Amino acid sequence: MATFYGIGIGPGDSELVTVKAKNILQTLDILYTPEAKRGSKSVALTIASPYVSDHLEIKQRHFPMVRSLEKKEPQWEQIAAEIVEDVKAGKNVGFITLGDPMVYSTYSYLLRLIGDGINTQTIPGITSFGSMASVLGQPLTMDEESFAVVPATAEADKIDQALAIHDTVVIMKVARHLDVVLPLLEKHNLIEKTFLVSHASTDKQKILYGVSELTVDDKLDYFTTLLVKKHPLG
Amino acid sequence: MATFYGIGIGPGDSELVTVKAKNILQTLDILYTPEAKRGSKSVALTIASPYVSDHLEIKQRHFPMVRSLEKKEPQWEQIAAEIVEDVKAGKNVGFITLGDPMVYSTYSYLLRLIGDGINTQTIPGITSFGSMASVLGQPLTMDEESFAVVPATAEADKIDQALAIHDTVVIMKVARHLDVVLPLLEKHNLIEKTFLVSHASTDKQKILYGVSELTVDDKLDYFTTLLVKKHPLG
Repeated sequence: MATFYGIGIGPGDSELVTVKAKNILQTLDILYTPEAKRGSKSVALTIASPYVSDHLEIKQRHFPMVRSLEKKEPQWEQIAAEIVEDVKAGKNVGFITLGDPMVYSTYSYLLRLIGDGINTQTIPGITSFGSMASVLGQPLTMDEESFAVVPATAEADKIDQALAIHDTVVIMKVARHLDVVLPLLEKHNLIEKTFLVSHASTDKQKILYGVSELTVDDKLDYFTTLLVKKHPLG
Repeated sequence: MATFYGIGIGPGDSELVTVKAKNILQTLDILYTPEAKRGSKSVALTIASPYVSDHLEIKQRHFPMVRSLEKKEPQWEQIAAEIVEDVKAGKNVGFITLGDPMVYSTYSYLLRLIGDGINTQTIPGITSFGSMASVLGQPLTMDEESFAVVPATAEADKIDQALAIHDTVVIMKVARHLDVVLPLLEKHNLIEKTFLVSHASTDKQKILYGVSELTVDDKLDYFTTLLVKKHPLG
């Protein structure tokens, strides 16, 4: 039966795609890819490209990355309608997302807008923070420990509480929010227990251990994540 | 250069292994697999078996799953020493773990015990909770949301606080700890917003939405996880 597949293609290294994602990519009729800025090449498509056949129809679509739901929802609705139409016409359709489709992904919205009218399947992917932990050789969690994933754009109070209760805290989307994050790391005495990683698992990968050199005015790359570990291994 | 690879083989479906894990498995000389009980077949090995050649030497080793570090550490030290010896003899050696090697895995201890004397590489895997979210079509996190992963064996106070502050909470190892977990879900009025999944992505998969039928005396399967979602999609 014709199906819409949401496919996580992992953090950057094409080999960190699952065998299932690879197999599905090879049998698709149409692939939708997100384009953050009009005309820009899709990072997700570059990662998936080793598994994509020359005959595949690629539909690059612009998803506005703005906070206002009113601004972005109409465009997403249009893409959702287009996908439903393609699947109802008997096509196997894929939508690829960086990392995992269920972690900070536009795919969640698409899935809600598409609803139950067509067959859908979601293929999980390796997350950026999962990849980071492996690169660093630092467990996200052991034994009775807990960990949390918090965006730097959340309320400061929430980040504060997460740092208070969990053994490991991953802070995502940190690029332009060091003014919020650094004082909180300072407060909890965790500046020296923070790993900074950008572009995990790609050839642009950068790692810092201890972030005392950062200042609130620093502008970091969009793909920068902090891994705060109260009990680092080793 | 001969290397020790820690390989995440995902939650259960052999297709949810990454291409990288598959490629490495196919080139190993020796594979160590964990055996929870003496004589039992390794679940991890069953998942990896499509990618394992007939020539591979398999060393199934018993890791005692007890809380006491004094009881288990000597056996782990012995296995770590054996691995180091194999790699120093020029062999490519793998150790497979269910899910991700950096999430509640014995591999973390091995890595610490092995230290810097040999070349090591960790390959991330799809976690059980990542797979659950895809199966359920329920995002772990969207927009400004946060999520936490907490073991049911943690202090009740920690689970309580995690349920208070995060939008999504994954509660692992829940099988014999419903006496702690159910009252907390009740307290936060989240009984009806809790998904129960066991054996995600395998043919034994079971799903429950809303856990009002559970009682503190129920004994659940070891591979049971709860996904508590304050704002379920749908």
